[in-house]
Amino acid sequence: MAFDEAGMAITIDAEDHPADIAHALSEIDPGEAWKLLCALPVEVQAEVFGYIEPELQEETIEHMTRPQLTALITEMKADDRADVFNRLSEEQQEMLLPALAHVERENIRKLSSYEEATAGAIMTSDYATLRADMTAKDAIAQLRREAPDKETIYRTYVLKDDRELIGTVRLTDLILAPPSRKVADLMDDDPVYAFVDDDQESVARTIAKYDILAVPVVDAQHHLLGIVTHDDAMDALEEEATEDFLRLGAHGEITESVRTAGIITLYRARIVWLVLLVFGNLLSGFGIAYFEDTIAAHIALIFFLPLLIASGGNAGSQAATLMVRALATGDVRSRDWGRMLGREFLVAGALGITMALAVSGIGVFRGGPDIALVVASSMIIIVLVGSLIGMSLPFILSRFNMDPATASAPLVTSIADATGVVIYFSIASVVLFT
Amino acid sequence: MAFDEAGMAITIDAEDHPADIAHALSEIDPGEAWKLLCALPVEVQAEVFGYIEPELQEETIEHMTRPQLTALITEMKADDRADVFNRLSEEQQEMLLPALAHVERENIRKLSSYEEATAGAIMTSDYATLRADMTAKDAIAQLRREAPDKETIYRTYVLKDDRELIGTVRLTDLILAPPSRKVADLMDDDPVYAFVDDDQESVARTIAKYDILAVPVVDAQHHLLGIVTHDDAMDALEEEATEDFLRLGAHGEITESVRTAGIITLYRARIVWLVLLVFGNLLSGFGIAYFEDTIAAHIALIFFLPLLIASGGNAGSQAATLMVRALATGDVRSRDWGRMLGREFLVAGALGITMALAVSGIGVFRGGPDIALVVASSMIIIVLVGSLIGMSLPFILSRFNMDPATASAPLVTSIADATGVVIYFSIASVVLFT
Repeated sequence: MAFDEAGMAITIDAEDHPADIAHALSEIDPGEAWKLLCALPVEVQAEVFGYIEPELQEETIEHMTRPQLTALITEMKADDRADVFNRLSEEQQEMLLPALAHVERENIRKLSSYEEATAGAIMTSDYATLRADMTAKDAIAQLRREAPDKETIYRTYVLKDDRELIGTVRLTDLILAPPSRKVADLMDDDPVYAFVDDDQESVARTIAKYDILAVPVVDAQHHLLGIVTHDDAMDALEEEATEDFLRLGAHGEITESVRTAGIITLYRARIVWLVLLVFGNLLSGFGIAYFEDTIAAHIALIFFLPLLIASGGNAGSQAATLMVRALATGDVRSRDWGRMLGREFLVAGALGITMALAVSGIGVFRGGPDIALVVASSMIIIVLVGSLIGMSLPFILSRFNMDPATASAPLVTSIADATGVVIYFSIASVVLFT
Repeated sequence: MAFDEAGMAITIDAEDHPADIAHALSEIDPGEAWKLLCALPVEVQAEVFGYIEPELQEETIEHMTRPQLTALITEMKADDRADVFNRLSEEQQEMLLPALAHVERENIRKLSSYEEATAGAIMTSDYATLRADMTAKDAIAQLRREAPDKETIYRTYVLKDDRELIGTVRLTDLILAPPSRKVADLMDDDPVYAFVDDDQESVARTIAKYDILAVPVVDAQHHLLGIVTHDDAMDALEEEATEDFLRLGAHGEITESVRTAGIITLYRARIVWLVLLVFGNLLSGFGIAYFEDTIAAHIALIFFLPLLIASGGNAGSQAATLMVRALATGDVRSRDWGRMLGREFLVAGALGITMALAVSGIGVFRGGPDIALVVASSMIIIVLVGSLIGMSLPFILSRFNMDPATASAPLVTSIADATGVVIYFSIASVVLFT
């Protein structure tokens, strides 16, 4: 019997949904989890294992004997199997390969050879195919024979003899059609497809855009290589959204659960950006050092320093966030920069004027009309410049083929801070010393 | 003939995928778009219209005559229809209702009465149902009759006479079964379901977790009210991810495309937070004003001010981003605060020490060993405190039933800034004046 953290006994039941069993097992020690899993039929083991998080999969595998691992891997779905296989150590892989049947070996070799985060990396070979000259009746009979093995038969792929994809046909249409009707007459002969080296995010967006269950993946000659199913696409979209989100906080990539990630992993994901930003913020320091005389003469200026530079950074973060997301969802493309720049100029101008009005009262109160003038005019220019920097940075990064989400709030803030210091004290020097 | 912005003629073809037609139409003037759409059969019009963005739908509707609108609405899928209906003006709604058939009227009334962002609001009534005592053969015959109207028949819902949901059955299993087998023997009698007032995000996560095509939506008595399909769930997840993402940049909600949103909409979404943050940043100003004497005596301290307070803000943003996302995806729950706090203490401590080492050299160089000591010890404490604030804020907000994503990078930065000013100059006062 296994106990979770609260000391409650965990019992699992082969009748439960595999996702629920996987969730329950993730709460306990991997060794204990494997003991419980062992008691289930191997088909259930394989299904449950596909729902377990990658890091826990690795730990659980260490508790398996070789025959146990072989049996489990053999039962898994083709895409899950390739994923697990990729995460095994080289020794484990070599130990395992001879034990697998030829078909599975070939399958793994094919599915694991594609670059990460491409259509090839997330596709599966569990699909059903038909020939165009089959009748609806024969097609259904063939699907009936093959169905239990295939991840989805709701849409099947119609191929020529050389595996060129020429159409797709819905199970519903096969069932509704007169039995003697040819597949060629029932199929959609202009199907949506993705190329094997397409980015996983664009494949997921294709599935979302066309509301389809799966998208066929082809090579340059339109030969069918696999399909990406809607659930794997949804996972890919989530993964990319998380990646963008963390990057926005100047956070390195964390692929595992925050709940279980190690201290060192978390440290590594954060330290690089923090140290890099130190050098960015030194610029602000040098800006201040340059204007030390101005500051010493008007120490009241310092009161407004955090306020002004933070406002530029905040407006810039807003603009950057908006553009990073719009570029990620495809709402805006890199060629839209010009148009967006014009609009941002108007919006940021209005924001700057509002903010200037908000602070000018405080300016008069704390430093008199001269200081108020300096603060108000600095505010307008700082908010405007900060916004334009924040909004442009994602476009510039995407032009240089970098991820626009690298334009994190902290990065934009650092740049806007240094710019803000220079703008503020330059205006102060001009207004207060002439 | 219609022209897009680049002056290219747009031609549309009823054979194209509705999503592609919708995309092409969104590039041109809504009046022109409607003229082109008019030329297509009404079923195609309805399908295309379902793919058009909400704001453009509204503008396009204004170019329609009443019979055109009625015909279009009648042809749309039940969930799309309810969505469009909800966005019509009251006069338009009253004008339209009598023209619709009784069934559609009832359907709209039901689907539009649920609160936004719940399962009820995104569910559809396009599903097929069966009775448990039917044979597989009769079931297939019934689906064959009903199929063309239903959004998905790949999984059908088995109901008692009072509409209580007692199971679901896969089309594949019906086809593979001996024709005389009862539905009761083929169905999954413990189906996954959602309640009608469940949050749309949790419904979407259920679909993602169980890798299913649709989840049935029931009331408290388990009567089936509708289904949420995987594509609508995917849209809901995207919507929530965008909302969280923008909020992280201290950005108000923007429901429409950034490309087409008006200047005033964008201004409104940003100004509230910017002005609120001004008051947050005034705190930093007061902190500085309080230590004016210390600063005047050691003007070199100012050089390190932006660096130190920004580092606290950056570490805090990182920690906040990580927690906001982990809370949103359900990886971490509010009761995990204690555990997370302990880990954050270790990680942030290590980060602070590294950063202190990085800046202490600059400290010696710019201000001598005393200043270096002040800067290094301030850095450790500021990074630690900033991180703990950043990571706790999302939890505190979620305890008070507010969206954790309100803990935006700019908000965390503002709080960390003010804290940083006080920590830095307090340490400086102690070290340099004793």
